[in-house]
Amino acid sequence: MKIAGKHYRSVWPIGEDAFGIIDQTKLPHELATLTLKTADDAAHAIKSMQTRGAPLIGAVAAYGLALAVRADPSDESLARTHDMLADTRPTAINLRWALQRVVDRLRNRERSERASLAWKEAAAIADEDAAMCESIGRHGLGIIRELAARKKSKLNILTHCNAGWLATVDWGTALAPVYMAHDEGIALHVWVDETRPRNQGASLTAFELGAHGVAHTIIADNAGGHYMQAGEVDLCIVGTDRVTANGDVANKIGTYLKALAAKDTGVPFYVALPSSTIDWTLASGRDIPIEQRSADEVLKMTGRTSAGTLATVEIAAPGSPAANPGFDVTPARLVTGFITERGVCAATEEGLRSLFPGHQK
Amino acid sequence: MKIAGKHYRSVWPIGEDAFGIIDQTKLPHELATLTLKTADDAAHAIKSMQTRGAPLIGAVAAYGLALAVRADPSDESLARTHDMLADTRPTAINLRWALQRVVDRLRNRERSERASLAWKEAAAIADEDAAMCESIGRHGLGIIRELAARKKSKLNILTHCNAGWLATVDWGTALAPVYMAHDEGIALHVWVDETRPRNQGASLTAFELGAHGVAHTIIADNAGGHYMQAGEVDLCIVGTDRVTANGDVANKIGTYLKALAAKDTGVPFYVALPSSTIDWTLASGRDIPIEQRSADEVLKMTGRTSAGTLATVEIAAPGSPAANPGFDVTPARLVTGFITERGVCAATEEGLRSLFPGHQK
Repeated sequence: MKIAGKHYRSVWPIGEDAFGIIDQTKLPHELATLTLKTADDAAHAIKSMQTRGAPLIGAVAAYGLALAVRADPSDESLARTHDMLADTRPTAINLRWALQRVVDRLRNRERSERASLAWKEAAAIADEDAAMCESIGRHGLGIIRELAARKKSKLNILTHCNAGWLATVDWGTALAPVYMAHDEGIALHVWVDETRPRNQGASLTAFELGAHGVAHTIIADNAGGHYMQAGEVDLCIVGTDRVTANGDVANKIGTYLKALAAKDTGVPFYVALPSSTIDWTLASGRDIPIEQRSADEVLKMTGRTSAGTLATVEIAAPGSPAANPGFDVTPARLVTGFITERGVCAATEEGLRSLFPGHQK
Repeated sequence: MKIAGKHYRSVWPIGEDAFGIIDQTKLPHELATLTLKTADDAAHAIKSMQTRGAPLIGAVAAYGLALAVRADPSDESLARTHDMLADTRPTAINLRWALQRVVDRLRNRERSERASLAWKEAAAIADEDAAMCESIGRHGLGIIRELAARKKSKLNILTHCNAGWLATVDWGTALAPVYMAHDEGIALHVWVDETRPRNQGASLTAFELGAHGVAHTIIADNAGGHYMQAGEVDLCIVGTDRVTANGDVANKIGTYLKALAAKDTGVPFYVALPSSTIDWTLASGRDIPIEQRSADEVLKMTGRTSAGTLATVEIAAPGSPAANPGFDVTPARLVTGFITERGVCAATEEGLRSLFPGHQK
């Protein structure tokens, strides 16, 4: 998508021995890019959330693994780097899917050809992600068109965290339909959940919607339920880090609360995802590991000072501890439907299998 | 309650022509007090949230009105100052109740005796608030004792915003039972919702629990649902700014979301309040005016720099607007019960009338 009229992807190859990313820890204050040259660089970028978003970190990890293969094409290096990259974020499933795809591609291939094969596979993962998000956008657009036609006035869409193009290679998952609807002239406005503690909504979602010209308003995570009660939310769309076979949804902490409010107030609640996010091996969301992140993300906040510099301030009572679970699990029963690259389905095992038959548990 | 062993109230008289408050906008970074000498001082302190909390602003407004009566005991001044102070916060009902109580006390009294009568009435409101909160604490303590006896291990209590002694004259509403349970040796731990956008949980609740020695952990507002799902919350207790005759609860924005999660996971959800918070004139929460506050509260954050000074930083995408509703309404059906100064009752009109008979709509 575009920033000030220039098209960007969130990850791009630089020759065959490096790749670039946008440093998302600097957004929205500064648009900075990073050049990554090793698998360790990629692991650091993922862990520190310089790059983030379930689909995007799959592509970044694949490029990182490809760089390791170029440095050392042995099976031992491949296995070691695979595990190192897979451990960077425990909740996201695309990460594991993308790494496995590179590993599978190299199976029984000569060491001499592995570097080139791995690089092409990483590039294919990135290109396919952009294409999948575009398909998700088209299918989600149908839902927005229908609601907009019924309402006959500006549609209000609520989203949590960032599942826009900055979370994928391009387009986004939850925001892809929003961009397409906006581009075809449907009047809409997005309620952007701030998304504490890392503020991906206030910083990334607001940034990318603003850069593309989509009307939006940032709200505290606490406010969404009130606006749903007041009839000021017509649709919720969020992304996800992992969907289990029964349709349970792991997503950014707080998603569960918005899904409860949507159910309570009759607002449709959709989850947008590429099928690589589905974990067919897990029967339900109870089995998803939930990442515990640093207490500092809760206790401190970074922003722009009036002098234009960045500063980090401690906001909480001195000495008070904090806990910081990164994700929660929204039970399938609260989800109206999934928007995938193959279409929209019910948030059930039957629904998922109707679009993606043939997967084994 | 105590800070570093010294007993504080949140409001106190200074002779009969001024009164003191703790400047809560400076907490948790600094313990500063303010001396208020006019009704305008009181109005500014309430509006700017130097003093806040539904029960406390009632007492502060009463002292403010008493100061105006001392300066000008006429009916015109009384009516004008009443309206000016009542307009400072539209959602809280105690504020109106306390102001009306001072006005009623002065009815048909000589101008010469009004200043003294008003001052005594304000002091009585403050003293009675402290006594009511102590009663709320005793009744809530029964609930905690019962849950603790059943669980036989550390009890986890979640609270939203600040309904502690800083929100009242002393003891608090939601936190009064917590302090009493802690003081009698019941093992407990409090999950403190950060409470964006003003962070009253991370700053005030964490501060006062820490100062009193109560174990607690600050969490993002997004995290409470996850901990309830995980079985790590045994009880929710919150305060309220207004309860309508049918038991609907206006409280800090985000309360509704926690009540939904508590209902969904079977966690008891109690609301603690002095009866002055009940608005018998409103049939349901739909009729409660919801205060819209400044967008800056969402877009900016104040905290301590590493140099030890206070700084305000802009945290959101530049140019993105924000909306900031201060309260939401939790439907009575989500509330397990009310903890009042007269005992615990169901969150229904019958429940409220069983404890407080004789009120007319």
